[in-house]
Amino acid sequence: MRAIRLQQGRISLVETPPPIPAEGEALVAVRLAGICATDLELIKGYYPFEGVLGHEFVGEVVAAAGRSDLIGARVVGEINAVCGACAACRRGDRSHCEDRTVLGISGRDGAFAEYLTLPFENLHRVPNEISDQVAVFTEPVAAALEILEQIPIGDGVRVLLVGAGRLGQVIARVLAGTGCDLTVVAKYPVQRDLLEAVGIRTADPLKTVGSGFDLVVEATGSQAGFETARRYVRPRGTIVLKSTYAGRIEVDFSAVVVDEITLIGSRCGPFDKALAVLFSGAIDPRPLIDSIHPLELGVDAIEEAGEPGKMKVLIENR
Amino acid sequence: MRAIRLQQGRISLVETPPPIPAEGEALVAVRLAGICATDLELIKGYYPFEGVLGHEFVGEVVAAAGRSDLIGARVVGEINAVCGACAACRRGDRSHCEDRTVLGISGRDGAFAEYLTLPFENLHRVPNEISDQVAVFTEPVAAALEILEQIPIGDGVRVLLVGAGRLGQVIARVLAGTGCDLTVVAKYPVQRDLLEAVGIRTADPLKTVGSGFDLVVEATGSQAGFETARRYVRPRGTIVLKSTYAGRIEVDFSAVVVDEITLIGSRCGPFDKALAVLFSGAIDPRPLIDSIHPLELGVDAIEEAGEPGKMKVLIENR
Repeated sequence: MRAIRLQQGRISLVETPPPIPAEGEALVAVRLAGICATDLELIKGYYPFEGVLGHEFVGEVVAAAGRSDLIGARVVGEINAVCGACAACRRGDRSHCEDRTVLGISGRDGAFAEYLTLPFENLHRVPNEISDQVAVFTEPVAAALEILEQIPIGDGVRVLLVGAGRLGQVIARVLAGTGCDLTVVAKYPVQRDLLEAVGIRTADPLKTVGSGFDLVVEATGSQAGFETARRYVRPRGTIVLKSTYAGRIEVDFSAVVVDEITLIGSRCGPFDKALAVLFSGAIDPRPLIDSIHPLELGVDAIEEAGEPGKMKVLIENR
Repeated sequence: MRAIRLQQGRISLVETPPPIPAEGEALVAVRLAGICATDLELIKGYYPFEGVLGHEFVGEVVAAAGRSDLIGARVVGEINAVCGACAACRRGDRSHCEDRTVLGISGRDGAFAEYLTLPFENLHRVPNEISDQVAVFTEPVAAALEILEQIPIGDGVRVLLVGAGRLGQVIARVLAGTGCDLTVVAKYPVQRDLLEAVGIRTADPLKTVGSGFDLVVEATGSQAGFETARRYVRPRGTIVLKSTYAGRIEVDFSAVVVDEITLIGSRCGPFDKALAVLFSGAIDPRPLIDSIHPLELGVDAIEEAGEPGKMKVLIENR
């Protein structure tokens, strides 16, 4: 099969044998896959992964030994394949399994390919009403919903989102659905336009946006973004770290202590709730799609995704 | 009156007029005051304060216009003098008042003096059963209890405390009272001896102490201490920052995100609960006292407090 492989810091289109599903795993033919900031950071070397990139996808089950009911199902998939036996799994924190592989990120080839494998338990059927171009956003919508799993956000809570890139746009839409009082700091006019089109208040990062926010979500992955978050959060407020950070961030811990700030790291979220949100139509991610490229042009697609202000670039199997 | 004043980075014994209480404030004759790491950091310049140092004290009210019932009362005092009108005060976060002064730390002369002033509402009467040498620990015991206000810690929760200095020793005793499964990383043998004498398990920082702690309290104020905290906390666990940090700390935010760690800054705590704990005798802080010096030798006392492995050095008015 064809796949986009990362090796020694370079990506290329390769011809490689399809992955062989282990016991309890399905073979999934990828229909559509999304490029994420994490993919771009993996290429830059933030984590030592070599293999097929890609972890956002929608596909069709083509083999599932012992689970013939799954054959032909259109599915999305949770990216952490877990052991079920370690302390984290026993505690119920399965996405933190100590022996996990992670699709296209750690120990498991990913979705920028014709086929991938995942355990049956990771797969979620996609209702017919959800198109491929919407379903491919299930993983980032779930990641955004993880914030609500960690912190209750009700009516009137003052929330600032710093960053309106590909994940920031999804987070903004999820937060707006909570009834909170939301402002989004967005660097590029195209980002602000996309948000204002759905009635979300935006702010230029060079201007002041008030102060004393109860919750700030940092989605830039940069030192400057964190400084902005720190400046605007109120004493005893919370900063959620919701990005892939390359390198270390400097933090004034004395100020964090004096203001009793809470910082929370936030990663993967609930796929069932993400599919429910997409099914309801409360969030329509399609305006975030910049372009769709065939797998053969996947390397170009990834390069395009790295351009400033780019939203979602998709890779399609035709 | 005599006082230990910090000016241009130097401390000295000075003769200065006693402070004049504003409306709603009492004049308190200091009986005994404690030296804290924050005092030492203020001298090093971590925050631009000039004035009389000291914020841990027990004293006697000698003037209280309109509140004659307070005259002669033996008291301890909350260190944040607040406006009652700003957003933080209205929210109930009075220790985060936007216009606060802080005894011996910000905008208000402190307790290494014959007299200090504080608002009536900051003062707590000390029961006769609590001696001066115990009551002077009310502020650090309250600061330690703040952790329990922020995070419920029940039976069997696996807790690691990193650092067993003057505040760490108090935190260890407060944590031990919760019924949690506590281990304390302590650098100096004298620190370990003090903890083991009250039945608290200790560990040498150079040795491994297991892994997967639910909660880690960082009380060293150092980069190395934070690295230790980070290494031992489990995924989805919590690190409480409970120290004064000089300078900035480098944090691998990607790891915080991947492991979904929560970091919480923790500062001042409830005086009423601290007095109740000291009244109950559940914590006896007296073994932590290294020495007691008269105010005239306060400069020497502060220098002594800065020596490695020193616990509590007190300054007394005789």
